[in-house]
This record gives sequence, structure tokens and C-alpha cells, in this order.
Amino acid sequence: MLSEFDLIKQFFVRPGAGRAELGIGDDCALLRPTPGMTMAISSDMLVEDRHFFAGEDPRRLGHKSLAVNLSDLAAMGARPVAFTLALALPVADADWLRAFSGGLFALADAHGCELIGGDTTKGPLNICITIFGEVASSRALRRDAARAGDDIWVSGTLGDARLALAGLRGETPLAADALAQAAQRMHLPTPRVALGLALAGQGLAHAAIDISDGLAGDLGHILERSGAGATLDADALPAGPVLATQDIALRRAYTAAGGDDYELCFTAPAAQREAILAAGVACGTPVARVGRIEAERGLRFVDAAGAPLDLRLGGFDHFVV
Amino acid sequence: MLSEFDLIKQFFVRPGAGRAELGIGDDCALLRPTPGMTMAISSDMLVEDRHFFAGEDPRRLGHKSLAVNLSDLAAMGARPVAFTLALALPVADADWLRAFSGGLFALADAHGCELIGGDTTKGPLNICITIFGEVASSRALRRDAARAGDDIWVSGTLGDARLALAGLRGETPLAADALAQAAQRMHLPTPRVALGLALAGQGLAHAAIDISDGLAGDLGHILERSGAGATLDADALPAGPVLATQDIALRRAYTAAGGDDYELCFTAPAAQREAILAAGVACGTPVARVGRIEAERGLRFVDAAGAPLDLRLGGFDHFVV
Repeated sequence: MLSEFDLIKQFFVRPGAGRAELGIGDDCALLRPTPGMTMAISSDMLVEDRHFFAGEDPRRLGHKSLAVNLSDLAAMGARPVAFTLALALPVADADWLRAFSGGLFALADAHGCELIGGDTTKGPLNICITIFGEVASSRALRRDAARAGDDIWVSGTLGDARLALAGLRGETPLAADALAQAAQRMHLPTPRVALGLALAGQGLAHAAIDISDGLAGDLGHILERSGAGATLDADALPAGPVLATQDIALRRAYTAAGGDDYELCFTAPAAQREAILAAGVACGTPVARVGRIEAERGLRFVDAAGAPLDLRLGGFDHFVV
Repeated sequence: MLSEFDLIKQFFVRPGAGRAELGIGDDCALLRPTPGMTMAISSDMLVEDRHFFAGEDPRRLGHKSLAVNLSDLAAMGARPVAFTLALALPVADADWLRAFSGGLFALADAHGCELIGGDTTKGPLNICITIFGEVASSRALRRDAARAGDDIWVSGTLGDARLALAGLRGETPLAADALAQAAQRMHLPTPRVALGLALAGQGLAHAAIDISDGLAGDLGHILERSGAGATLDADALPAGPVLATQDIALRRAYTAAGGDDYELCFTAPAAQREAILAAGVACGTPVARVGRIEAERGLRFVDAAGAPLDLRLGGFDHFVV
């Protein structure tokens, strides 16, 4: 049986000096920010049967647990620095922990993000990560910064994660290889850190949010906090490759409100269109222009011909759904 | 039924500007540290049936959830600044949330510590707080800083929280009023923030740790990281007022290894004795000198006459126990 201290030492303490002045093993970690920079801080809690299925592959779970937090930094335009991990486990299983920490650290290392502390306890499986990034305060991509006339952009593609969920639930029949491809987007989301850094660092965008609960709902947060409205071109929303083979009603529904995408939605002046396309190319992240911020409140959809569409959609709510 | 957003708005968003540049409601909070200061960061996760009983009073639970984190800052000598709260709830119950947030904010306000973000989700009750403080790097009270010859001190009193647990479990018979008094220490621990700040700010102490898992085990972490040993005077350990009425064996066991005390154990040069006593008086926190750091490895106990005692004790382990 692994003790709490053995568990931490064996799977979470890593050799070598990191960015933190003091890492795992004291009452607190000590982290000194780069002078002049502001700390961007976000916490996400992942719970079994809500954010992932019971028995989920632990390596993928380690990846996703950090990815959803990195995505929050990306949406602020912040550079990842460090994170804490609090973990409740029903049992301390060495194989599970090896795979979980392997997936976690592979993604952390790819972003230069150091584990500096946390907590472990026995309990129903629960993974809570708090992540720390740095951003110049005046460059941060805030939800309240959209302006009427801004273009609305999204990164990557939308809807394949939601389609995979529909496939796994048997709501939508999918061939095994299509389901497997779509499920990659659900299990192994790619946080758009480089794009967020480019948008903030070059001053290209006004507002940004990461699309975790569906585009319509998450864009709604930008609109509410910015005191604005928007029109989205439902048929310009970039469907994931598997969703692109489905009928138009499903494409519209899952691109507009699918959830679990972890793409960025951001707003930017029309004058930055070329620079944004170039930043997308430089980051290896496709970007698509999908609508416009307007002074008139509310979120409207139009089709490819510009005709109004009545899509009744909502964001994901962890208590109502 | 409360939605996730209503829940956050109703119980956790507070009016007025805080210390953070950006608080609840964006992808990340933005926090700019005081120039020259280092951020002290700690995460604690509290789980039902492990850290508290099912059905625990939510106001007390709100207090305790933050108190255990403030205690980590105190043990580093850091000034509390802000915290994030991630909360998994089986149901979104307005009465429970009102009481929980009431207890949480009463303690947060007492320490000028601002809630800047977090997460809420449905799931087995789980409370994860990450706390942020500030400390001058060279003044931080690290576990690896004890030196042979240092006095060992503890704040407040020890063992009443463990005695209350024994009473509630029926291991030790306690009169109702005695149990109620001891249980206060278990439910409403007092983080020793002012004392930690005085010890670090005036440079009085070398090493410190907060006693959450029992003095012997937690002091053991200081000894291990400092490459030192210690002798404790078992009969100098300050028993809580209820434990003080119990027999000597129980007093020794619960003061030396009771757990859930959230007092500070710290080491300091003998030259600082008067200044430490004065700091304790200034903070309204009793301090007691209970032993000495030695070059010889291992933790030894002696009785009031200086004769060796064989106390077989261990720290609390969340997986082994």
C-alpha cells in the first residue's frame, strides 16, 4: 500500500530545479513572478461521471485535467508558468498514478508548466488543478473587451467532442473509426496556448474566452460582460472532420453549442484580419471568422445566405443539465 | 433549481473592488503581486467522511476550509492576499450555500483575503481551495531551515481536536460540555496568521510548519528536510483545556500526535526567546518552548524529569490510516 508521502514522491516530485523558488514539499510553494507581469490564475475541478466516464484511461485523464486549465490561460493570452494539483482517489493504485502523471507531465512539459504543490487524499475521484500564468496586464484578453464592429473568430474546429458523446450515448449512430476519431477531441483536447499568446502579445484581439460549454453560451459571456450583441454565421462555424460528414441540423447544433471543444472564441477589429490569419498559420492553428459583434443586444444566427435562423441553444450548466 | 451561474452570482460574487485586477467571471483572475514580494501558494482539498463528517454544519465547514489554507500561509510567514474555491456539490442547496459562504467570507474578511475565482460542479461534496499570500523570499519560514541548537516552539494548545474525535467515536468518554468545548477546536480551527507574520517579518524563527497531521509527524518533516534530529519534552507540550483534564498517557499521545490542531511548530535560536514570547503576547497567541533541534537524527521524547520516553507515534496518513 502506498502512503500519501510515497505516492507524492514516486509520481509527482521530479528531479532538477524548476522555475519556482520552492516547489513540492513545504507548507506553500514560492513563486516569484517576472517583474511587471501580472499573474493569471484559474481553477478547474474534474469529477467522475460528469467530466469523464468512470474507468477513463488515466493517461488521457492526466492530459485533459491540465489541458482544460491551460485553455483558460490561452483565453487570457497568458504564458503558462506553474500549477498545483489536488487529487482525491478512491485507492492509491500505482499503475493508475503512473499513467495519470505521465499524461499530465507530457502536456506540462510541452508548455513549460511546473507542478509546484497540491494535496492528495482518499475520496471519490476528483481532480482539481489551479494554474498560474503570466501576462502583461494591459494585454490580457478579457471577456469585457469586445466592441461593436469586431469580427468574431474561432480557432480549430468545433463539435467533434459533442458528436463523440452522442455516439457513445447511442444518440447518433457512428462507425467505429469515426467514433474513435471524434473521441480524440473529447479525450485529448489541445489547448490553444500559442494562439492566445500571439493574440495578446501582438495586440491583435480585444476579447477572448475558451469554448468549454459551447460557443453560443461562452460567446454569451463575452456579450454580457461587454454590453454587446452578435450575429453568428451558423454555416461558417468550422465543424470537426467527423461532424462535417453529418447532416446540416446536427452540424449547426454541435458547432454552435456542442461543448468540450476547448477552442478559443475571440473578437478583433477588422483591421487585424490579415495579421490574425498569419498568427494562425504561425501557430499551426486554423482560425475562422464566423460573425460580428454588434451594438444590439442578443445573439442572432444567420445561414450562409444571410437569412435569420432560429437555433434554440444553451450553454452547458453543471447543475441544470 | 439554481443554475451554476446563479449560484456563483448569488453566493460568491461580492460587491466592490478588491485587491485583484480582475476577479470572478473571466477565464482567469488577474493578480499583480507587490513588487519585490514572492507569492506563497498552497492547495488543500477537503472530502466528506475524511476531513469532516457527512452533514457537517456548512457555516463551520466554510470556516474550516479556508482556515486550513490560511494555516499553510501562516506556516510560511506569508500575508494572505487571495484564494480560489473549487466546489463539487451533490445538489445546489441555497440554505447550505448561504451558510457555507457566510462562514468562508467571515474568516476571509478577517484576514483581508479575497475570493478571485474557482469552479463549481455537481459531484460528491469536495472543497478545494488554493490560497495566495505574499512573503519576502529571504524571510519565508521553510521546513529545511532548522539548525542544531534551535529551540522548538509550538503555538496555542494541542490535542483537543483529536480528543473531540475520540469522544465522538466513543473511544474516550467525555461529558457533553467537555465534548462541545473540545469539538470547537476540531470544527473552528484558528489559523495563526499574525504569529507567522511576526516570526517571519521580524526574522525570529528559522523553520516552521503547521501541525495538521500531529506534532511528531509534522516536526518529522522539518527534521527530514533540515537533516537534523530533535528531542521533545513530552510534558511541556501544551494540552488543550479539555485534554488537560485527562490522564497523562492520553495527554502525551494527543499532544504529540493528535492531528487537526492547525497550530504552528517552529524552530528558533535561543537568542530570540524573549522576542518570541513578546511576539506571542502581541499576537494574542500563547507560545510554548517544547524541545530542541539536535545534530543527531531521529525524534526523541523525554519526560518532565528529562528521562527518555518511548512514545510510539506516527503522523496521520490519508491513505494508510
